[in-house]
Order: sequence, then C-alpha cells, then structure tokens
Amino acid sequence: MDAIRFRDPAGAIRDGRLHDDHVHFGEDAYDLDQVDVLAPCEPSKIVCVGRNYAEHADERGEDIPDRPLLFLKPPNAVASHGSTVTLPADKRIEHEAELAVVIDRQCKDVAPEDAEDVIRGYTCLNDISNRDDQDREQNWVRGKAFDGAAPVGPAIAESVPEDAGIELRVNGEVRQSSTIGKFIFDVPTLIAEVTEYMTLQPGDIISTGTPEGVGPLEGGDHVEVDVEGLATLEHDCRRAE
Amino acid sequence: MDAIRFRDPAGAIRDGRLHDDHVHFGEDAYDLDQVDVLAPCEPSKIVCVGRNYAEHADERGEDIPDRPLLFLKPPNAVASHGSTVTLPADKRIEHEAELAVVIDRQCKDVAPEDAEDVIRGYTCLNDISNRDDQDREQNWVRGKAFDGAAPVGPAIAESVPEDAGIELRVNGEVRQSSTIGKFIFDVPTLIAEVTEYMTLQPGDIISTGTPEGVGPLEGGDHVEVDVEGLATLEHDCRRAE
Repeated sequence: MDAIRFRDPAGAIRDGRLHDDHVHFGEDAYDLDQVDVLAPCEPSKIVCVGRNYAEHADERGEDIPDRPLLFLKPPNAVASHGSTVTLPADKRIEHEAELAVVIDRQCKDVAPEDAEDVIRGYTCLNDISNRDDQDREQNWVRGKAFDGAAPVGPAIAESVPEDAGIELRVNGEVRQSSTIGKFIFDVPTLIAEVTEYMTLQPGDIISTGTPEGVGPLEGGDHVEVDVEGLATLEHDCRRAE
Repeated sequence: MDAIRFRDPAGAIRDGRLHDDHVHFGEDAYDLDQVDVLAPCEPSKIVCVGRNYAEHADERGEDIPDRPLLFLKPPNAVASHGSTVTLPADKRIEHEAELAVVIDRQCKDVAPEDAEDVIRGYTCLNDISNRDDQDREQNWVRGKAFDGAAPVGPAIAESVPEDAGIELRVNGEVRQSSTIGKFIFDVPTLIAEVTEYMTLQPGDIISTGTPEGVGPLEGGDHVEVDVEGLATLEHDCRRAE
C-alpha cells in the first residue's frame, strides 16, 4: 500500500495508506475523493533533471546532455493532488509529466549501487514550465520555480516497474506517452550525480525529466499524470488575472 | 542590537542579541568567539541576484541585465559564521561578498513601496561559486548550490546604511571593496520582482549580488565579509580530498 498524507475531517494531518482508492488511517477509511490530500512529502528542495529523454530534447531543439542537466524548484513550487494551480498571467505555460523519486534519509556522495538504500519511493510530478521566461533567463527561476509549478503526488509507492509507462492527459486527451525505460540517465546515476554536490534530506525529491509531447496548459484544464504502478496525480488549473 | 542565533554551553539553540562582540540571552552574556554561532535564519530558499553591480558584470565579461538575473541556493548551501566550508575538490572556487536581505513574513506580490514591511533585516553572505561547473551548465546548480556555498551571518541588523561599504578580505587582504549604493536593482525592486513569481517565507533570503574583485579561494583561507553597519561574517575553508 502506498503512503499518503492527508487532512482528516477534523483537519488533523495524517500519514495514511492508499489502497483501492481508499485512504486508511488507523481503523478509519475514507474515499480518496473526499479527503484533502497533501503533498506526499515536504521537500527542502526539488532537484529536477532536464532533457532526460532524447525525444523531448529533440522537440525543444536541444542536444542530449553529456551529464544530467540539473535545475531547482524550491518548496514554494509544491502543489498537491486535487489542487488548483494558478498559472502566471499572460505567459506560455506547458506541462511536463515526470517520475519523481522521494529521498528517505539524509545522504551525500551516494554511489549508484547504494542509491536504492536512500530512496523512500516514487510518485508523480508535473514540472509546470513558463516558457516565455524560461527561454530568456540563464537560470530557470521565473520559468520553473513559481508558486505551484510542481504538483506532486498523490502517494508514494515503494517501487515502480522497470519500464513503466508514463502518460499525461489534459481534459482526458493524451498529450504525453512514453516509458521510463527511455531515460538517458537512470535513477541511481542521478542520485550519485546530485549527491556529489548536495546533501539530500528526507522528503527531498529528484524529478527525472519529461518525455516528448509537452504542450500548453490553460485556465480550466484538468491534468492527470499517470505512471504505471503508481496512483494517478490529478490537478486543475486557473489562470491568474 | 542585532539578532543572533547560537548554541549556549548546554547545546540549547537560543535567539540572542549581539552587542559589542558579546552575545546576550536573558541575563547571560558570552564572548562572540566562545559560542557556537548558527546561521541567523533558516531559509527555505535563498534567491540570489547575479550581475547587480556593473563592474562585476564587466569583470565576468557579461552584459548588464535588463531585469534581475535570479538563481537559487537551497537550504543545504547554508553555512554559519565561524564554520569551515569544504570547497569541492579540483574545482576553481571563488568568493562573492554580498548583502543579504532576510524576509520577516510570508509574502507575495509585494509592491516596491511596501518592501520595507516584509524585511526582518540585513546580514552578510558569501556567494561561494564553483566556476568550472558554473561556466558549463545552464542552471547554476553544481556551480552555486553545493553544500556550504552560502556562509551567512553572523547576525541580523534591522537596517543598513544607504550607501554602506561592502568589503571582502581573504587572510586579511582586501579583495572586494565597493558600496551597495552601486546596485543596479535596489532592494525594493528585487523584492517586488521575486514576489511576482514566488511566495517568500519568514527567514528566506534575497542576496543582492556581488561587486567587482571576485577571486580564488583555497583550503586554509580565512574569509571576512564586512558590510558597513553590520557584524562581520567570518569563515574558514578546507579543500575536499
């Protein structure tokens, strides 16, 4: 069963379990649709990976990197399952479906063969991107780190199938569809690379990049990020005025 | 008197006051040199500004930006006054003296004329930079976000003189010397720009960029960052093996 954080009807924050679309805590069970789901962890940082699928690098007109392209989303970017994300006004906003890896314990200088030991589990993330600013700034801060730019969840699964399908739908229409078997850099390689420079904390996230098929988001859109074997992340969008 | 966080002799974390090189808490007073000074705040993110002094843009061979160049340092980058920062092995590391602005309350969309209301105070920061990686990556993560890349402190002053001098010394030798009157973008402009995109939290930091004179750091170096009217930040360096 997957780990899920939620508010119970009394408003208390609970670390529950998700099973068959029901959220369990102690002897209580709730329909997933009827609880207030929180982000499944509280990252001190989200370390994101750019261009980790060759076809996405192609569609952005970029080369395949010789080492992971890293960028950061701070905690203000986190949004939860079932939430409504506010898209910055007058900007070209796009979705990016990603598999997110949640870190379980403080770690540094993790060898690829030890990476499994520091992983709490896997969840879904939408790396929402503001292309107008991203395309004109050195560091993707306005482009990638704005409030709500990282819907994540709903739950943390202990494992993910090796060649899991990854799909993103907008209003039910499939926009992105690939498999994580197409990663250029695999999860152990990413953890080793990141922890060569940075200490990771429990709840920190490494987001593994998006496949081809990125496209526009508008106010009113309903987004689903679906990674095979994981619960589906859903969120809505509104446009700032 | 300035706000300073420290561990008392029993190891308890205290919010004290710094006055005449003495740290006060309740009726106790300690020599500054004899307490374990902590970072003066616990930022969820440090939003840094690049090229905010024209002479520094010149020395890096870069244009003056038409809007603030932003980048991020996550919490793992924080280092405290009196600490020894580990410089990444085999990399060209440089110092960058900066005035840091500490945020007092959660805020978004702050108008320049209201910026003063969200500022807790001012402190010193060394934006330690790994040029080898910075110069070859899109986002300055390996270059600027490594562990210890943001020594900050020692204390938070409620105000800073309008044209305060800013100086950095390595082993007593002056390397950087300018004044914050030379900012391209002033503090209210920076707060307005950042909060257009991101919610700031209490303890978050906006670091305002460095003047000309950046130069190398090596293992064994002792660094002082001195902003007129603020307590001086000091830290040592060791080189990773």
